[in-house]
Amino acid sequence: MPVRAAGEPPFNIVRCAYVTLGVTDLARSRDFYVDALGLTETEATGEAVYLRGLEERSHHSIVLVQRASPEAHALGFKVASEGDLDALEAFFAARGLPASWTERHAQGRTLAVRDPFGVPLEFYARMDGAERLLQRYGLYRGAQIMRLDHLNLFAAELQQTHEFYAELGFRTTEYTETEGPDPRLWAVWMHRKGNVHDVALTNGRGPRLHHVGVWTASVMSILHACDVLATTGHVDKLERGPGRHGISNAFFLYLRDPDGHRVELFASDYLTVDPDLEPLRWTLDDPQRQTLWGHAAPASWFEEGTPFAGTAVREPALRARPVVAR
Amino acid sequence: MPVRAAGEPPFNIVRCAYVTLGVTDLARSRDFYVDALGLTETEATGEAVYLRGLEERSHHSIVLVQRASPEAHALGFKVASEGDLDALEAFFAARGLPASWTERHAQGRTLAVRDPFGVPLEFYARMDGAERLLQRYGLYRGAQIMRLDHLNLFAAELQQTHEFYAELGFRTTEYTETEGPDPRLWAVWMHRKGNVHDVALTNGRGPRLHHVGVWTASVMSILHACDVLATTGHVDKLERGPGRHGISNAFFLYLRDPDGHRVELFASDYLTVDPDLEPLRWTLDDPQRQTLWGHAAPASWFEEGTPFAGTAVREPALRARPVVAR
Amino acid sequence: MPVRAAGEPPFNIVRCAYVTLGVTDLARSRDFYVDALGLTETEATGEAVYLRGLEERSHHSIVLVQRASPEAHALGFKVASEGDLDALEAFFAARGLPASWTERHAQGRTLAVRDPFGVPLEFYARMDGAERLLQRYGLYRGAQIMRLDHLNLFAAELQQTHEFYAELGFRTTEYTETEGPDPRLWAVWMHRKGNVHDVALTNGRGPRLHHVGVWTASVMSILHACDVLATTGHVDKLERGPGRHGISNAFFLYLRDPDGHRVELFASDYLTVDPDLEPLRWTLDDPQRQTLWGHAAPASWFEEGTPFAGTAVREPALRARPVVAR
Amino acid sequence: MPVRAAGEPPFNIVRCAYVTLGVTDLARSRDFYVDALGLTETEATGEAVYLRGLEERSHHSIVLVQRASPEAHALGFKVASEGDLDALEAFFAARGLPASWTERHAQGRTLAVRDPFGVPLEFYARMDGAERLLQRYGLYRGAQIMRLDHLNLFAAELQQTHEFYAELGFRTTEYTETEGPDPRLWAVWMHRKGNVHDVALTNGRGPRLHHVGVWTASVMSILHACDVLATTGHVDKLERGPGRHGISNAFFLYLRDPDGHRVELFASDYLTVDPDLEPLRWTLDDPQRQTLWGHAAPASWFEEGTPFAGTAVREPALRARPVVAR
Repeated sequence: MPVRAAGEPPFNIVRCAYVTLGVTDLARSRDFYVDALGLTETEATGEAVYLRGLEERSHHSIVLVQRASPEAHALGFKVASEGDLDALEAFFAARGLPASWTERHAQGRTLAVRDPFGVPLEFYARMDGAERLLQRYGLYRGAQIMRLDHLNLFAAELQQTHEFYAELGFRTTEYTETEGPDPRLWAVWMHRKGNVHDVALTNGRGPRLHHVGVWTASVMSILHACDVLATTGHVDKLERGPGRHGISNAFFLYLRDPDGHRVELFASDYLTVDPDLEPLRWTLDDPQRQTLWGHAAPASWFEEGTPFAGTAVREPALRARPVVAR
Repeated sequence: MPVRAAGEPPFNIVRCAYVTLGVTDLARSRDFYVDALGLTETEATGEAVYLRGLEERSHHSIVLVQRASPEAHALGFKVASEGDLDALEAFFAARGLPASWTERHAQGRTLAVRDPFGVPLEFYARMDGAERLLQRYGLYRGAQIMRLDHLNLFAAELQQTHEFYAELGFRTTEYTETEGPDPRLWAVWMHRKGNVHDVALTNGRGPRLHHVGVWTASVMSILHACDVLATTGHVDKLERGPGRHGISNAFFLYLRDPDGHRVELFASDYLTVDPDLEPLRWTLDDPQRQTLWGHAAPASWFEEGTPFAGTAVREPALRARPVVAR
Repeated sequence: MPVRAAGEPPFNIVRCAYVTLGVTDLARSRDFYVDALGLTETEATGEAVYLRGLEERSHHSIVLVQRASPEAHALGFKVASEGDLDALEAFFAARGLPASWTERHAQGRTLAVRDPFGVPLEFYARMDGAERLLQRYGLYRGAQIMRLDHLNLFAAELQQTHEFYAELGFRTTEYTETEGPDPRLWAVWMHRKGNVHDVALTNGRGPRLHHVGVWTASVMSILHACDVLATTGHVDKLERGPGRHGISNAFFLYLRDPDGHRVELFASDYLTVDPDLEPLRWTLDDPQRQTLWGHAAPASWFEEGTPFAGTAVREPALRARPVVAR
Repeated sequence: MPVRAAGEPPFNIVRCAYVTLGVTDLARSRDFYVDALGLTETEATGEAVYLRGLEERSHHSIVLVQRASPEAHALGFKVASEGDLDALEAFFAARGLPASWTERHAQGRTLAVRDPFGVPLEFYARMDGAERLLQRYGLYRGAQIMRLDHLNLFAAELQQTHEFYAELGFRTTEYTETEGPDPRLWAVWMHRKGNVHDVALTNGRGPRLHHVGVWTASVMSILHACDVLATTGHVDKLERGPGRHGISNAFFLYLRDPDGHRVELFASDYLTVDPDLEPLRWTLDDPQRQTLWGHAAPASWFEEGTPFAGTAVREPALRARPVVAR
């Protein structure tokens, strides 16, 4: 059962803001994200590449770091003020989750913590600015990605993870339950910024990063990305779609980057700012929740994901088999 | 000069939510909004027609009422909770603006008040629900309007009006100033819901309603609306566009309904949820602020608007001539 | 090996013009083609429904006739003049293929004949007119189909069938060959009207109708058709796509009508009027020829088709297994 | 009155194929056509730049040559065979129009001649090939221009010019007449390749080149071109549109290149291969013929054009004032 937050928490998480991905060949990954997908490189150091979308006015939303094996690092969230960081520190401390203050390039002070399930989170209030490229149309390339949209996680303890993020103030917009007399929550979409989600949770071996969702202004940009990727040596990166999700109504394309990290190009969901917006319920035996048009998703999409650095992956408590196609 | 709110006010206005328009021939207006533009009629009484967009899950966002002459009635805003209504009542009372509780069809209790400049405002927390049509694609018609987006007003006292709405918690995203050593604020875009605006103010004879902005999911919907309107007896309704605004980056089309009320079809602005987002400044001598592509707007667009019922229209304090084309 | 016509034949086939499909429930099929897909009904008799696209100014391009079982009837071709019909009669007679003059509703005199492989063909020069709806944008619905584009056939004797249609003046634009030292023609696209094809031939159990291709002005129309079909009770009609063919560069969606007849929504191929345009060669082991984006086509797409009334289906001479996905 | 060709002439003009434009600063013009508009440079010599669209498989469709002042040079037409060139030579000779054989870079033998009104024409059967870029999506830029579509001319002797091109085999698809009891032909659209036009004629000071039309696969490409041009220093190049023509149903954008040569980006007309297709008639007092959406065209669009090198410009015989807006 989805839960609702009992009022707003004493801090204001504004939105999901960045993800740090460990990649095994920084140059190869840069080629994929910048040259093929069209993200903008704000800055590159020998150790990291900082990327952003065309409308983003802050320094980074995807950070690639050189690592020996593919792994996900911090999920970053922007908060409204410095005071919110202190309130979050207290929140985590009260739950026995010790947070630490860390330095992140181009950010103000940053609170690093793991959620109760081992997912590494980072919170910050200030980030260095970057030029807005929204009206630099001559620079538009590839998927014409505008901004980071959401982070999707496999959760082994789905119900509890959902409840924890509800405590953080994330509001549920849509959810999937198992069928039958005792429905169990299977997946859930939760937001802070007023669209369908900042964070989504899917039942499965976890915690793992299922995908990073980036937003494009038009479905045409996503189709163009298919054409570009398919004819520039990246046809093997297209894992699923393009298609329309029943859930969220999003037009989607799932890609796998050179290390297998999954990226979703995402367009056309809807506004969710009303606090009394009723979450939409889907059931696991309705294949149109996954693809409105009835297509099956490949098995890889349900099974594969990126482990978080330093976090063990657990089998999910809930076993059920989603209906994946008509 | 644009101002910033000194912290959040003690109430939470979620978004602009509806507008009530007095029309002289209800059947004729219904034909325009429903049959030509494709808005959905939730309910019609002999006196009023209640309209909504495809993704809207509440009863109405545009209300047409039969009147002897064209006029604008209340601008409606949704607040987060019932308590916010009481806090707003106190806010207005403290400023010598007596609010009253009124009944509105399909809404919970509604606070009615005029802002210091005479604009009739209504606030509510609850509205009756309505079926979400977002995935009833067989019903899509005309402009495929998704939702109300914003309300744009002529203000005779631009700076003061801006400051008042900043007190209400509206945050500035973009603004236009006059040129010269002593710049004066000419127009301003302010939001609550996380995109470019819920309310915009333009210097001019006011207060008057400049236009109602409705949001479409795609620029293609706006082009299709041009084709449909132009070939179904409504070519005279196209006032300006389609085009791209420099300000807001929106793709726009301005229509005049059968009574001359202006409606903007609007797509493709950007996310503004970051509280530290720096407002973008434009100057009055930059024609690309108005139309990125350099087109002139017709004089009617700068001069004509809808008076509010019962409110006198005043000449603007600030006189300047915008540069309207290259 | 593809062949070229030895000069123009003594008649001028202008384009493929119609197909007649036997359906088992005329009302159900009309619902699919008109209400869901958005084709226009020019005329309905008790026995037949005559359909056309939005830009077509002649009476019909798809004719549905009531039959006991699903089957394809005549493939219709428009010729430039009445004299061309006589020349075609002579052409077929010279090859031992007796043609007959038949009556078709809303057409001038019509030559009916079977090609050497048993495919029923009809040729005509004049058809009754119908209102052009291209600029009646208020009538646009569903897939917004503009016109018939092509007819695709399974051929059991691929090479010979190709050579016969080359004799009729059809010019090859693209073709697929088997791999290896002795390549064999596997599929071929041939045109008269100046785009990629009027007729395509695919190796397989034949002759059968593989699909009827209809043209839309925009890929967005095809995506909208997916959404409409998926939410109006027709999700089971989507067989394959949307996607991009390598061959022809078309953006495609394959549907199965209520009797299993396959319809392709098709957009964005290219101009082929130059008589010296070199045909493009693809090989059977290149999966991007089928789907540029790398998706597999379902087995049904390779195996299922509509038999022609009164024509036995033969096993193909050529056995090979196409590579259908990466 | 529009006329029809009395049967096919003894030669086969396949399509309009290229235009040669004299520009005053070759580097500046290359920047506009290649860097901003996204045309492909096949080859550049010190004296000329050879351009083509993404789907074009021949060497050039727009040729820029360095000249002291802006002027138009030859309009090029592809014919089906070498024999057609000889037949054309005889055709012109019979009308007292001496043609000459000339050399053109990357073309086979080329027949150069002036039409009776002084327009320089060139005919050729063979041109060097060039790589097809249609599926090199990574190279798509700017307006994503696919191919040359048509050439539009001001004609001082409209009726006679029309009759001459009808003799050459061009077929009329649409035309505008003056109003009144004695209608006079005002403008005419004529084709060879099966869409609305290869050549259009407009009454006016002539002969002059009104514009070069290039074809894009999508209206979205045209909107993107507006955004790119407007933000890369070329906002002054946008003369008219984007919009929809009533005539031809085309979605259009008119640009002026750095020398004032007019270029039309053009999408979404229709198929015209049927030889018995009835031309569509428009009248000069119907503003929707010009812009379906009712917009006025600027005076420059009606008055300005490019003179042909070496040809005097004459005042038009027919004086009338088109209705340019509602």
